[in-house]
Amino acid sequence: MTEKIYKVIMIGAGPSSLTAAVYTTREDIDTVIYEKATVGGLAAITDKVDNYPGFPEGIEGYQLAQQLEKQAKRFGAVIEYGTVDSIRDEGKYKVVKVDGTEIKAQAVLIATGSSYGKINVPGEEEYYGKGVHYCATCDGAFYKGKRLVVVGGGNSAIQEAIYLSGFASHIDLLVRSTVKASDVLQKKLQKLVDEGKITIHLDTLTDEIVAVEGKVTHTKVTKKGKSSNVNADGVFIFAGLKPNTAFLNGSGVELDDVGFIKTDLKLQTNIPGIFASGDVRSGSTMQIASAVGEGATVAHSIREYLQE
Amino acid sequence: MTEKIYKVIMIGAGPSSLTAAVYTTREDIDTVIYEKATVGGLAAITDKVDNYPGFPEGIEGYQLAQQLEKQAKRFGAVIEYGTVDSIRDEGKYKVVKVDGTEIKAQAVLIATGSSYGKINVPGEEEYYGKGVHYCATCDGAFYKGKRLVVVGGGNSAIQEAIYLSGFASHIDLLVRSTVKASDVLQKKLQKLVDEGKITIHLDTLTDEIVAVEGKVTHTKVTKKGKSSNVNADGVFIFAGLKPNTAFLNGSGVELDDVGFIKTDLKLQTNIPGIFASGDVRSGSTMQIASAVGEGATVAHSIREYLQE
Repeated sequence: MTEKIYKVIMIGAGPSSLTAAVYTTREDIDTVIYEKATVGGLAAITDKVDNYPGFPEGIEGYQLAQQLEKQAKRFGAVIEYGTVDSIRDEGKYKVVKVDGTEIKAQAVLIATGSSYGKINVPGEEEYYGKGVHYCATCDGAFYKGKRLVVVGGGNSAIQEAIYLSGFASHIDLLVRSTVKASDVLQKKLQKLVDEGKITIHLDTLTDEIVAVEGKVTHTKVTKKGKSSNVNADGVFIFAGLKPNTAFLNGSGVELDDVGFIKTDLKLQTNIPGIFASGDVRSGSTMQIASAVGEGATVAHSIREYLQE
Repeated sequence: MTEKIYKVIMIGAGPSSLTAAVYTTREDIDTVIYEKATVGGLAAITDKVDNYPGFPEGIEGYQLAQQLEKQAKRFGAVIEYGTVDSIRDEGKYKVVKVDGTEIKAQAVLIATGSSYGKINVPGEEEYYGKGVHYCATCDGAFYKGKRLVVVGGGNSAIQEAIYLSGFASHIDLLVRSTVKASDVLQKKLQKLVDEGKITIHLDTLTDEIVAVEGKVTHTKVTKKGKSSNVNADGVFIFAGLKPNTAFLNGSGVELDDVGFIKTDLKLQTNIPGIFASGDVRSGSTMQIASAVGEGATVAHSIREYLQE
């Protein structure tokens, strides 16, 4: 019995790899995708996607995910459930370990995405995408003229709070200890505080996100042992973004300081034949449109690699 | 009367700028797009788009174009018809001349796409997208097991003929004079000729593309003054791809050897505040998915630029 060697193994079945798989399988390059949780990735658990091009009135995230999956399968992509433990480069082929079993391919695409940092409070998971958000670019525009709570005090929290102030009527910024952001950002923030657009609450713990009849109404907070409520129509949480790259430990794939995968313009990593695209890539914009675009680009690069 | 200065002028209303406009206008960055011909660009005149992610059964090109337009307009993008004659950099703002009138903006996105080289024979325009094609990656998969004619003898024609041989049952390659391609490509081509997959016709002029009841059946050719017919279900023409950048003469925007616009990873040209995305960009993959992805990316870069 000859051991099967795939042309391409893709890790993670989000929009980027599903797009890449449309391209590879349409060209009869046999492709298997391994997914450990939900096909469609973060897109699948997003309530409404308003800015993915082609759907003028927006589309529900799970619906878009299903359509991407259907399209990839139509051309012959195989999606398997399993957790990838490691990747090993053997030159001519790569060895991917899935749930303990070694599988070989000539090329590998890593498209495992990234995960939003959680604050792990009641209501956070329950109202995700329906009042609780982690991406200002994606969901900020739903809150024109509304009251928001922003949780976080780091660079990205401050930057996104400033951005969201362009939509919201008012923002309460809940900071666990003190604001830790660049001078430029602090100056911009102060200006918005002076204008009454943003109120900063330092030393403030966010305890719970509360909804009435499924609609977020307020957050419960504690400041110096004293509890109170902060009203909000929506809550944006910026507690860091974590690339899903832990399984690459010891693989030799080069990561940036935060753990995102470095690639060249063709989306190839430092190891020939191992590619990365979408939210897991260093420099990604964390948008479905970009992930999909990179999927088309990386499929071209994979084809070129296989032809050599 | 104060002169209006736009935040962003986008040149060319194809998928890339329509996507960028969804992002900019959704963030209340006022945006005007100038289009000289068809909203949707090449996508709009493509019969069927099979590989744009989100439409499992494919979508007609003009339908996709309309949906992209509707989405951009929904958030407030303004589309004007007019031909851009030139761009001038004045540092803090850019001056775009449209049909002789000067219009100012803080940032400019060039997304004018590229045009396929034509051979200008009867039938070529009439059956475009319905038997006559210019993009193998886009349309090759529609010809599994079918007979094809490929017109051209340069590097890209040979490369695409080799690629198309993966789908077609047989390919007739019509070359005006001799094959001018790299040794590697010539070697691969010869292998396919030896296998009987490709027949090369040198010194052969393509005179006409003929269809019966709207279905392409053959091409009329002339070799050394003698006319004959070559049967085909489809004709792929590779007569060069021309970036639509003639209006940039004297603008200072840096182009590559062929005339495509050079950008950095953030899709900014050598001139701060002037950006480029989609098919007009050097290194582009000429895919709608990629153009759209670059639209999302460049909108981020434009936002950053405007905030500085």
